[in-house]
Amino acid sequence: MTDKTIHVTVWNEFLHEKKDSSVAEIYPEGIHEAIAKYLNERSGIETRTATLEEPEHGLTDDVLNSTDVLIWWGHMAHDRVRDDIVEKIHHRITCDGMGLIVLHSAHHSKIFKRLMGTSCSLRWREDGQRERLWVVSPWHPIAEDIGDYFEIEQTEMYGEFFDIPKPDEIVFISWFKGGEVFRSGCCFYRGRGKIFYFRPGHETYPIYHNRMVLRVIENAVRWAAPVERPRTLTIPRAIHARPLEDLK
Amino acid sequence: MTDKTIHVTVWNEFLHEKKDSSVAEIYPEGIHEAIAKYLNERSGIETRTATLEEPEHGLTDDVLNSTDVLIWWGHMAHDRVRDDIVEKIHHRITCDGMGLIVLHSAHHSKIFKRLMGTSCSLRWREDGQRERLWVVSPWHPIAEDIGDYFEIEQTEMYGEFFDIPKPDEIVFISWFKGGEVFRSGCCFYRGRGKIFYFRPGHETYPIYHNRMVLRVIENAVRWAAPVERPRTLTIPRAIHARPLEDLK
Amino acid sequence: MTDKTIHVTVWNEFLHEKKDSSVAEIYPEGIHEAIAKYLNERSGIETRTATLEEPEHGLTDDVLNSTDVLIWWGHMAHDRVRDDIVEKIHHRITCDGMGLIVLHSAHHSKIFKRLMGTSCSLRWREDGQRERLWVVSPWHPIAEDIGDYFEIEQTEMYGEFFDIPKPDEIVFISWFKGGEVFRSGCCFYRGRGKIFYFRPGHETYPIYHNRMVLRVIENAVRWAAPVERPRTLTIPRAIHARPLEDLK
Amino acid sequence: MTDKTIHVTVWNEFLHEKKDSSVAEIYPEGIHEAIAKYLNERSGIETRTATLEEPEHGLTDDVLNSTDVLIWWGHMAHDRVRDDIVEKIHHRITCDGMGLIVLHSAHHSKIFKRLMGTSCSLRWREDGQRERLWVVSPWHPIAEDIGDYFEIEQTEMYGEFFDIPKPDEIVFISWFKGGEVFRSGCCFYRGRGKIFYFRPGHETYPIYHNRMVLRVIENAVRWAAPVERPRTLTIPRAIHARPLEDLK
Repeated sequence: MTDKTIHVTVWNEFLHEKKDSSVAEIYPEGIHEAIAKYLNERSGIETRTATLEEPEHGLTDDVLNSTDVLIWWGHMAHDRVRDDIVEKIHHRITCDGMGLIVLHSAHHSKIFKRLMGTSCSLRWREDGQRERLWVVSPWHPIAEDIGDYFEIEQTEMYGEFFDIPKPDEIVFISWFKGGEVFRSGCCFYRGRGKIFYFRPGHETYPIYHNRMVLRVIENAVRWAAPVERPRTLTIPRAIHARPLEDLK
Repeated sequence: MTDKTIHVTVWNEFLHEKKDSSVAEIYPEGIHEAIAKYLNERSGIETRTATLEEPEHGLTDDVLNSTDVLIWWGHMAHDRVRDDIVEKIHHRITCDGMGLIVLHSAHHSKIFKRLMGTSCSLRWREDGQRERLWVVSPWHPIAEDIGDYFEIEQTEMYGEFFDIPKPDEIVFISWFKGGEVFRSGCCFYRGRGKIFYFRPGHETYPIYHNRMVLRVIENAVRWAAPVERPRTLTIPRAIHARPLEDLK
Repeated sequence: MTDKTIHVTVWNEFLHEKKDSSVAEIYPEGIHEAIAKYLNERSGIETRTATLEEPEHGLTDDVLNSTDVLIWWGHMAHDRVRDDIVEKIHHRITCDGMGLIVLHSAHHSKIFKRLMGTSCSLRWREDGQRERLWVVSPWHPIAEDIGDYFEIEQTEMYGEFFDIPKPDEIVFISWFKGGEVFRSGCCFYRGRGKIFYFRPGHETYPIYHNRMVLRVIENAVRWAAPVERPRTLTIPRAIHARPLEDLK
Repeated sequence: MTDKTIHVTVWNEFLHEKKDSSVAEIYPEGIHEAIAKYLNERSGIETRTATLEEPEHGLTDDVLNSTDVLIWWGHMAHDRVRDDIVEKIHHRITCDGMGLIVLHSAHHSKIFKRLMGTSCSLRWREDGQRERLWVVSPWHPIAEDIGDYFEIEQTEMYGEFFDIPKPDEIVFISWFKGGEVFRSGCCFYRGRGKIFYFRPGHETYPIYHNRMVLRVIENAVRWAAPVERPRTLTIPRAIHARPLEDLK
């Protein structure tokens, strides 16, 4: 574990901010820039951004191959993300150990559904009411500096059943004023990669200006950074293996 | 928990048995018939079969909709399985709770990879040596009547790293004479469905005549049968939900 | 899986009902009899009861050795349960596979804390407000016949952080009107035994007359019944083992 | 995540080395010093030692309260460890997040059994044959710099069934020449604490001079270090909590 810099790419669909003035008011440079600005101020993290309408969605081989942790926000244009780029991201995660942080409405992104193998559907309601996130894994690095719970005053509701595989770790469970609960911070391991789904983040609320939310994202970045190891020989292809013991 | 009959469909690619006389000698009517014959002799189980070269691979809507547990064996022709039928199977599992038992080389089947979201690759070697399967979940219904371990005298080797998500339960871990280990009996929950991957089963050995192997498959059938519940509203589609509490 | 009768023993501290007339009004014969009465009406289950103030707490060797599933309710007198009997119960669970269902305030019972290895502490408040239990494992036998959620109109609150090991399965997550969440239905596997913690059940509310609560307990009984297998040789004592392969 | 020094205490029973010249030859200053020497050479780690026959086993309040990660080796004198000190260690782990690394025969130590709640028994044989440890969690920080597997040429055998709760993570599964397998690197989370059980380490072999074994211990130290957070209010005692929402 060397103290090397973590290279983060924040990907954003970046459509709501262009089309909707009330969103642009909250995120004048886009959700990606709000997150990137915060992360760039933290020690040991270097962040750039990429968006849907750039060539190759801003995710060229050069960018992907030099990204340690990819943060993903999308909502209205999941289908416009190219399948071949989704497969490249999948390869980078499972083979090379690139981390992935999936935010809010990206539960329906192609890459998250591809990795989960399920519909990733859920209940939702845009009511602008309170959410309270309870820590249920007090040992977890993603809960660093977070108390027993934290609150978001106005948010969109997501409720169970959330159609995901059983998470390898649940960091947060949310309470919603309207009567629902949600597994709001979920860790998954796939091949060499670490994946964190984090629920907060609707475009019409200033969620990504909330210091607790940003702190959780920072914690997740540090947690999701790749572990340095020799390549795992069986990802992604089967290998024919000679015996390691004498079979006489 | 009513004592109702479990309807099983055993699906087999059924190509090796037609093409290779040494395989046909072991399984004259095909692997599917060897498994179906055993299961049909057990109380409370009714079994039929389906194969690749039948129309719709033998998996019409009528067949799928009346199947409680689907058993899947494939090896050389995974790519010939129609994508639309794979999606139907996926829907039956995650929405309706149909069980799925994935045998041996079906680790590379489309339906298993679709559900896992990973490459499902592994190490392998056809050396005809001994395998010993150790029970590591002694409480598990799939281990019913099985002692601390059981052996298969001649088998193909599968070794780690097996590129699957962390199993929700590991029932068996295999030892191989050549020096490898393998998570040989793995349970996964996806949506409403239960999935069991069971490693033994190469076509050139009489694995499916082994009473321990057959007993594990029977146990898995009983474990994988659907639980009767009202439909889960959020599988596979998100729903817009009214608040359950007064939001005033 | 033979269709044999499941022998259940419902254990109750049985002190509140004797001392407090408001509790006695709800459970005139005790909480144990309310649960036992329901279970005895279900097919394939035979139930008896045992209480703290009986000799050996009603848990003689004969009783324990013929119990498939033990249900445990306690609150004000955890310390009066004899340590040697706790050890006998532990042995029956881990060595013989007896199931254990731990209800509500029994989170602080000696047997549950002994099995968990943690303090099993939590937040609580007796406010008589609504609880809503959401199903987060739609595939689970303990959720049989239960919809996406069910409600209890008046209950005591239990909130996170609940100091237990990460549950092997979470069946229900509760929402409370006062702002808390709780992992309300938790499965644990220990040795050969299955353990289910179920939150509802305060003595001052008619929780054990609620058909949903009783149905969950019935489902849990069927799930927790022992799997028939030869004895696991290494529970509870280490064994010196000869090699299974030729070491020449 | 600040780059602060991790304070490690290596605890050793330190009896075999005093009594048995063949052990003393391998570990002239004791197993604890072999491990401490390696760790002290690594950046960001400061290590001291403590042993059974020191006053309070060398684990005074001052020592415990300034330990981030405790490493534990014991074998022949588990019973001589004082119960009150075991409870102090338990408290430091679950309440304060001190990490614990349990080595080899310490599977039967009081603190490990106390945390697990099971017998922690297993099969064993002192045959001096080969062990091969396979990585089954390629994403795991404890597998940093480790390839698909590593080998120990001469070791004592430990085999399944290992009577522990289902590990929260399995990092290594061992293959033994004599025919057994073993979950050799297991992670557990309890309260705020992280626990790693690591199998290799018999006193009659130079296991703790093996660079791979030492590297795994170093990785585990970094992984097990506490996460900085406010105290979790419900560990170890329940709290009566006022409602967070208006209950009118």
